Amino acid sequence: MISAEYISRSPITDKKYFIPENFDDKKNIERFLLQHPGKKVVVVQGLGFVGSVMSLVVANALTEEYAVIGVDLPKPPSYWKICSINEGIFPVLASDPKISLYYENARKKNNLYATFDPEAYARADVIIIDINLDVKKTNSETGELKDFDVDLTPFRKAVETIGEYCRPDALILVETTVPPGTTQKIVKPIIEEYLQKRGLPVDQIKIGHSYERVMPGPKYIDSIQNFYRVYSGVNEKSADAVEAFLRTIIKTDEYPLTRLGNTQATEMAKVLENSYRAMNIAFMVEWSRFAEEAGVDIYEVVNAIRMRPTHKNIMLPGLGVGGYCLTKDPLLASWARKNLFGSSEPLWQSEKGVRINDQMPYFAFRYLQSQYQHPLQGKKLILLGVSYLNDVGDTRYTPVELFYDQLRLHGCAISLHDPHVKYWEEKDLWIQQNLEQLLNEEYDIICITTGHKEYRNNPDFIQQLLNRNSCFIYDTIGVFTNEEIKLLQQKHTVKVLGRGDL
Amino acid sequence: MISAEYISRSPITDKKYFIPENFDDKKNIERFLLQHPGKKVVVVQGLGFVGSVMSLVVANALTEEYAVIGVDLPKPPSYWKICSINEGIFPVLASDPKISLYYENARKKNNLYATFDPEAYARADVIIIDINLDVKKTNSETGELKDFDVDLTPFRKAVETIGEYCRPDALILVETTVPPGTTQKIVKPIIEEYLQKRGLPVDQIKIGHSYERVMPGPKYIDSIQNFYRVYSGVNEKSADAVEAFLRTIIKTDEYPLTRLGNTQATEMAKVLENSYRAMNIAFMVEWSRFAEEAGVDIYEVVNAIRMRPTHKNIMLPGLGVGGYCLTKDPLLASWARKNLFGSSEPLWQSEKGVRINDQMPYFAFRYLQSQYQHPLQGKKLILLGVSYLNDVGDTRYTPVELFYDQLRLHGCAISLHDPHVKYWEEKDLWIQQNLEQLLNEEYDIICITTGHKEYRNNPDFIQQLLNRNSCFIYDTIGVFTNEEIKLLQQKHTVKVLGRGDL
Repeated sequence: MISAEYISRSPITDKKYFIPENFDDKKNIERFLLQHPGKKVVVVQGLGFVGSVMSLVVANALTEEYAVIGVDLPKPPSYWKICSINEGIFPVLASDPKISLYYENARKKNNLYATFDPEAYARADVIIIDINLDVKKTNSETGELKDFDVDLTPFRKAVETIGEYCRPDALILVETTVPPGTTQKIVKPIIEEYLQKRGLPVDQIKIGHSYERVMPGPKYIDSIQNFYRVYSGVNEKSADAVEAFLRTIIKTDEYPLTRLGNTQATEMAKVLENSYRAMNIAFMVEWSRFAEEAGVDIYEVVNAIRMRPTHKNIMLPGLGVGGYCLTKDPLLASWARKNLFGSSEPLWQSEKGVRINDQMPYFAFRYLQSQYQHPLQGKKLILLGVSYLNDVGDTRYTPVELFYDQLRLHGCAISLHDPHVKYWEEKDLWIQQNLEQLLNEEYDIICITTGHKEYRNNPDFIQQLLNRNSCFIYDTIGVFTNEEIKLLQQKHTVKVLGRGDL
Repeated sequence: MISAEYISRSPITDKKYFIPENFDDKKNIERFLLQHPGKKVVVVQGLGFVGSVMSLVVANALTEEYAVIGVDLPKPPSYWKICSINEGIFPVLASDPKISLYYENARKKNNLYATFDPEAYARADVIIIDINLDVKKTNSETGELKDFDVDLTPFRKAVETIGEYCRPDALILVETTVPPGTTQKIVKPIIEEYLQKRGLPVDQIKIGHSYERVMPGPKYIDSIQNFYRVYSGVNEKSADAVEAFLRTIIKTDEYPLTRLGNTQATEMAKVLENSYRAMNIAFMVEWSRFAEEAGVDIYEVVNAIRMRPTHKNIMLPGLGVGGYCLTKDPLLASWARKNLFGSSEPLWQSEKGVRINDQMPYFAFRYLQSQYQHPLQGKKLILLGVSYLNDVGDTRYTPVELFYDQLRLHGCAISLHDPHVKYWEEKDLWIQQNLEQLLNEEYDIICITTGHKEYRNNPDFIQQLLNRNSCFIYDTIGVFTNEEIKLLQQKHTVKVLGRGDL
C-alpha cells in the first residue's frame, strides 16, 4: 500500500493521483512554451479558489495573448489540481457558466498549462502570487477565540522559490491577502537577496500588489474581471508595470483602476474593507439579541433603516460569518500592526469583530436551547445547508460547523442537506442532496442554516414542511417571509433568530 | 437687580426677557384658537432644534390646516424662544431658506402660537413630544468616558404634565429619541394613571412613536418633511392615528411610511441607526492611527474602497464626533437594555463606539504634539471652526471642545473662527467671524477643525495661507486636496490627521 502522503485525490472525480518523486517537468514546460512563441508568459503561483480562476482570466485576457502556467505544490491537497487542469477538468466547481466557457477556450487555444516544477518561474514575464496566507486560530468549543498567530513561513518559502528562479526583470504581482507591510518588508527583501545570491542585478525587478475582490458563485469570473481594482508598486516603475498588465485582463474602461501611493496602502485597503464588513456583522449581533429581549423583530427594523441611502449597507443578523476572508483578515491586519510596524496596540475593534462573529453560531445554538424548552439530548435534527454562503458550495470556515459541533456535543442525531456540497471536507462527512427524500424522515427539529434558494421563496418546500407531522422549525437565517411563517405556525412551532416578535 | 433665574436672553437678538411669575396664558390661547374654528389643534412640546422646526412643518401641513401651539418651559434656556416665536423672530438660525419661508407663511396665516401654559395640552387633538432626553456623561479631561447615566425624571415630568391636561381621546406622538421601551413602559402608564386620577376613560387615548431624521443645515425642513419615516403605536388604533397624522405633513408618496410592529421597534430603529453610524466612525479611528504608523494615506485608501457599492458608506477619519445624537444614542440603547429589559449585558460594542469617539479629539491633539516636535507651551494657535458639522453653526457636543481644552491645558493661546457661530454657548466664548482679519495675525499653528466651505476648495483661503510667514498647518478634517497640500508645503509644514504619507 502506498502511503497517503504520496496520494492526491480529486474531490470532483474521486480519481487518485500518485505524487511523483521526480519533480522535473522542464520538458513539458518547454514543449508548452514552444507552441506560443513571442507570447508573454504569465505564471500563477497557487491554484486555489483565486489562483485557478485568475489563470483562466489571464488565459482569456482582453488585449493580449498570454501563455499561462499555473504552479502548485506536488502535495496531497494540491497535486490533483495540476493533473486535473491538464487533463481537461477544471478543479473548481462553480455555478458561474463563464468558468467552463473560459476553461474550454483556454483548452482550445492550448494556452494554459499546470505544473509543480518551479522552473516555470524562470520563464515568466509576470509572476502572480495567489497562494494562501493563513491565520492560525485557536477557538474554544463555544467559539471563543483563545489565541491566534500568523506564521509567515510557508509564504516566505513560496517567495524564496520565486527568487531562486525568476528573471531579474520579471514583474512579481502579489495578490494574496497579506498583513499590510508584507510586499515592502518581506517580498522585496527576499527577491533582492536571492537575485544577489544568483549574481543578478536587482534594479530591474518590478514588484507590486493588487487584490482581487473574488466572490465564488454565479459571478465568479466577473468578480475578478469586471470589477474595480486597486493596485500599487514598490516604486513607480513597478506600479506602471502592474497597471499595464491589469489593463490587459480587466475591463478598465468600465471599472477604472485606482493606484495607491505605496504597497502598504493597497494591502491595508484589502484587509480594511473585509474588516469593515466583519465589524458591521459583529455590530448587529448584540442588537439582534437585544431585539429578542425587547420583543422586537430585528428584520423589520433593519429593513426600515435600509430605506436611508446612508444606511443601505447595514447588515442582517444570521447564523454567523464564514469563508476564507472575513474570518481572518481583521486578525492579519491587527497582527501586522504589532509585528510589522511595532505598534504597542492591536486593531482592537477589528479583533473584537472576529471574536464576536466566531461565537455567533454558539449564540444561535443557545437561542435554540432557550426556545426549544426540552432537552436536546437524543433529538433528531436536520440542518439545511452547510455552506457558509447562499447558493454556493463553499464550506471553508462555515459557521454551520460550530453549530453542528454544539448539537453533537448535546447528543443530537443530525442529518445534513446541501444542494451544493457533496462532501464536507473539514468534517469528513458526506452530505445528502435529495431534499424531498430527506424530508420524508421524522425530525424533532428542522434548522435552516444556509439561505440557499431551495429553502427561500420555494412554495414546494413550504408545502413539504406543511405535510409533515408537527415539529420545531428553527430559521437561523431569516429565509421565511411573514406569510410563510404564519402558514407554518398553523402546524409547527417556528422560531427565527433575531425575531423576538413572532 | 433681577436674579438670573428670572431672565431669559435670546442669543439671536441679545434681547432679555423677564420670566413672568404668573404662568396663566389661557386668554391668549383662547384668543388664538378662536381664530381657527374647526381646525384640529396640534401642540408641540419642546421648542428646541426639532420641536420648533416641527411646529413650522405642522403649521405648513400639506393636506390639512392645523392650529399649532408650541409649548416650552418658562425658564431661562427656553422662555425667550416662546417670546421670539410670537414676536416674529424664529428661534433657530439655519442656512435652509425654507425655515424663514415656512415661518413667514405661518405668521401670515397666524396659525402658530407659542406658550408656556400647559393649558394648551387640554385643547390638543395631537400632542407631539419633542423635548430632550439627555444622557449624563462623565468624561476625564482626555475624553475617557468614566460613567454615564440616564435620568428620566425631566422626561417623566413632561409626560405627567400632558397627563394632567390632555383630552382622553388625544393622539400623543413621541418623537423624542428615547431608550427603547419608553413609550410602552413609561409614557403609556403615566398617561393612563393621570387620566384615571382625573376620572377619565383610558380606552380612547392613542399613543405612538415616530422619529424624525432631522439634520440641521441647508435641508433642515426637508429632513423632516421630505424623508422616510418609521412609526408605530401602542396598539393598532394608535398606529392608525399616527399614520393618518403623518400623511398630512409628509410627502408620503415620495417617501413612504414604514409601520413597525410595536413602539420598541421604532425606538430601537432610531438608536440603532445612530449607533451604526457612531460605530462606523469609531471603527475608522484605530485604522487611521494604523495608517499613520504604516505611512499610509487613509483618505486614498477609503476613497478606493468606496468604489465598491457595498462599501460606499465607509467613513473617513476626523477630529471627532459631535452633535446631540451620535454622542449619546448608543448609550441610551445600552442603558435601556439593562434598565428597561433587565438584560445582564449592556450593548457592549455600541458603548465602546462612544468611548472611542469621545477620545478622538484627544488623539488628534496627541498627533499634533507628536508632529509639531516643539513644546506647545506659549504657542499661538488659531482653530478654524468650532461647530461639529460643516456649514452649520451647531456647537452641541462639538469635538472641538476637548481639542481646545487640551490646547489650553498645555498653555496655548488660542484664537477661534467660525463663520456660523457667534457665541459658543458651552464655553461662554465669543467667536470671531472675519477670517481675513484673523489671518493677518501671527500664529505658530493653524488648525482646521471644521470642514466649512470657507476652508474647503477656497482658492482665496489658500492664497491667504501662502501669503503668511511659514508656520505649522494642521488639518484635522482632510479639507485640503493633494494639490493644495503641495502648494502649502512650499512654505509651511502641513500635517493631516490620518495621512501618514504626506
